[in-house]
Amino acid sequence: MNKPRIAVSVGDLNGVGVEIALKSHAEVCQLCEPIYCINSHMLEQSAKLLNVEIPKDFDIWHVDGEFEIKPRHVDMACGKYSYDSFMSAIKLCEDDKAQAVVTMPIHKEAWKLAGLEFVGHTDLLRQHFKKDAIMMLGCEEMFVALYTEHIPLKEVASTIEVGKLTTFLLDLYTCLDVQKVAVLGLNPHAGDNGVLGDEEKEIESAIKYVNEKIGKEIFKGPIVPDIAFTPHARKNYKHFVAMYHDQGLAPLKALYFDESINISLNLPIIRTSVDHGTAYDIAYKGEAKTLSYINAVKSAISFIK
Amino acid sequence: MNKPRIAVSVGDLNGVGVEIALKSHAEVCQLCEPIYCINSHMLEQSAKLLNVEIPKDFDIWHVDGEFEIKPRHVDMACGKYSYDSFMSAIKLCEDDKAQAVVTMPIHKEAWKLAGLEFVGHTDLLRQHFKKDAIMMLGCEEMFVALYTEHIPLKEVASTIEVGKLTTFLLDLYTCLDVQKVAVLGLNPHAGDNGVLGDEEKEIESAIKYVNEKIGKEIFKGPIVPDIAFTPHARKNYKHFVAMYHDQGLAPLKALYFDESINISLNLPIIRTSVDHGTAYDIAYKGEAKTLSYINAVKSAISFIK
Repeated sequence: MNKPRIAVSVGDLNGVGVEIALKSHAEVCQLCEPIYCINSHMLEQSAKLLNVEIPKDFDIWHVDGEFEIKPRHVDMACGKYSYDSFMSAIKLCEDDKAQAVVTMPIHKEAWKLAGLEFVGHTDLLRQHFKKDAIMMLGCEEMFVALYTEHIPLKEVASTIEVGKLTTFLLDLYTCLDVQKVAVLGLNPHAGDNGVLGDEEKEIESAIKYVNEKIGKEIFKGPIVPDIAFTPHARKNYKHFVAMYHDQGLAPLKALYFDESINISLNLPIIRTSVDHGTAYDIAYKGEAKTLSYINAVKSAISFIK
Repeated sequence: MNKPRIAVSVGDLNGVGVEIALKSHAEVCQLCEPIYCINSHMLEQSAKLLNVEIPKDFDIWHVDGEFEIKPRHVDMACGKYSYDSFMSAIKLCEDDKAQAVVTMPIHKEAWKLAGLEFVGHTDLLRQHFKKDAIMMLGCEEMFVALYTEHIPLKEVASTIEVGKLTTFLLDLYTCLDVQKVAVLGLNPHAGDNGVLGDEEKEIESAIKYVNEKIGKEIFKGPIVPDIAFTPHARKNYKHFVAMYHDQGLAPLKALYFDESINISLNLPIIRTSVDHGTAYDIAYKGEAKTLSYINAVKSAISFIK
């Protein structure tokens, strides 16, 4: 069987993306055929700064653009190039030239400088495909899907609504081949029977409706949020739905910071990503860690299968 | 030097309190002189159910009350007795007969049945001493102080206010002998410069004011909440201030569930507690874990010193 072909967008060239790609290339080639969305001029500049050789089998897909790489600088040209690299990777999937996209980190400020108004990769994917992408983060040990993402904490409670949550859980179920998902409550002690908040009623109704529709008890909850991630609870569950960003990501990153990845679900294409930023502080110093990227590649492959 | 004397309230007798006290007695006696707030009749009944001997040096302080222990049942008499045991332990401290209180878990429903309207130990302490107790949970590796505790999530944002937070941080500083405390932001990415919420401005002002008043950079932040507890961040900080219950406790319990304890700060007496409930599911089965209790005793002793 042929290895799957994976389009890699190189992210912000002033950050750690190319270093990670070069460092991991030999290992990644064992798993898939990577196609790096960058041109030879920019790749050579980056490799020279890193003082490393470019492997002979490092397949690139030409993305227009020439500018000076300035390690650790927020830069407009660099922002634009990371966007173009990502769009090329998406196109490769749409044209059946690749079966998944794996993304290196972009810099949001650089996107802003380049006039790109997306909050990030996931937001761009939502607008491009006009679909409600689901953001899931994690690693082999545990995954957390986010019901809400980048909104102020004070707006979270009013988004907890049975109709929206039902759609979210059904979409998630169609994307995941799993038998058990823990759905967290919103309030301390999951509301303590309404004493500490009553949004859990909506969550309970959505879970009941979805399980009935599926015909199986897939979703469990609402689970007490501060108990959901204890070692004991994690023996019972590998997949979690968090009601808001930090409810899921603070415990995940406390436990599995280096190995975690980011997956966009509920889209026509498969996209996984490293779960860290451009790491400007260590860019072009040879210190970047590759575990999250390699896990992102592995995860993309498992979704292709 | 004499060992410190510690008053132990036995908690809900239908739960795991007495089992833990008996199991840990020999080890605890190495550290302090424990005084258990229970009468001989109830102690003997409990020991008989557990099928264990009562150690000869198991010093008790008589607390009135006789009723049948019904393992794993929510019971009014049991609720009342756990309250009386706690009040006796407080009295021992007020009368200088003990230097700290360590509490076993009570059952909130049992307190309700007994007509006791406190949310828990900390709430009772606040009302008894008419002081703003600070709830801190953790273990030797990390401690989290809670700025808000048992309130609905939707009410958290409106409590973030520079005056109240300033008082909280100053109170906390007088209770802790530490040089560095991480103060978390409220919103995802700590608000991302106001794009995802602006309560971080209040937090920033409070930190600035308090540090100036102290004359040292004790408090740092607002820290991005989902990055605050990564392995790397925990190398830099051992003490954290969380803006709300699950922000601090979900990561703490994900990392250190068994060993964590609960401390009430900013009170005339020292009080520590196990960080688990009555554990009815395993009560009187010989399976209760003692680590949290022993850590609570150790922590009380360190505060006495």
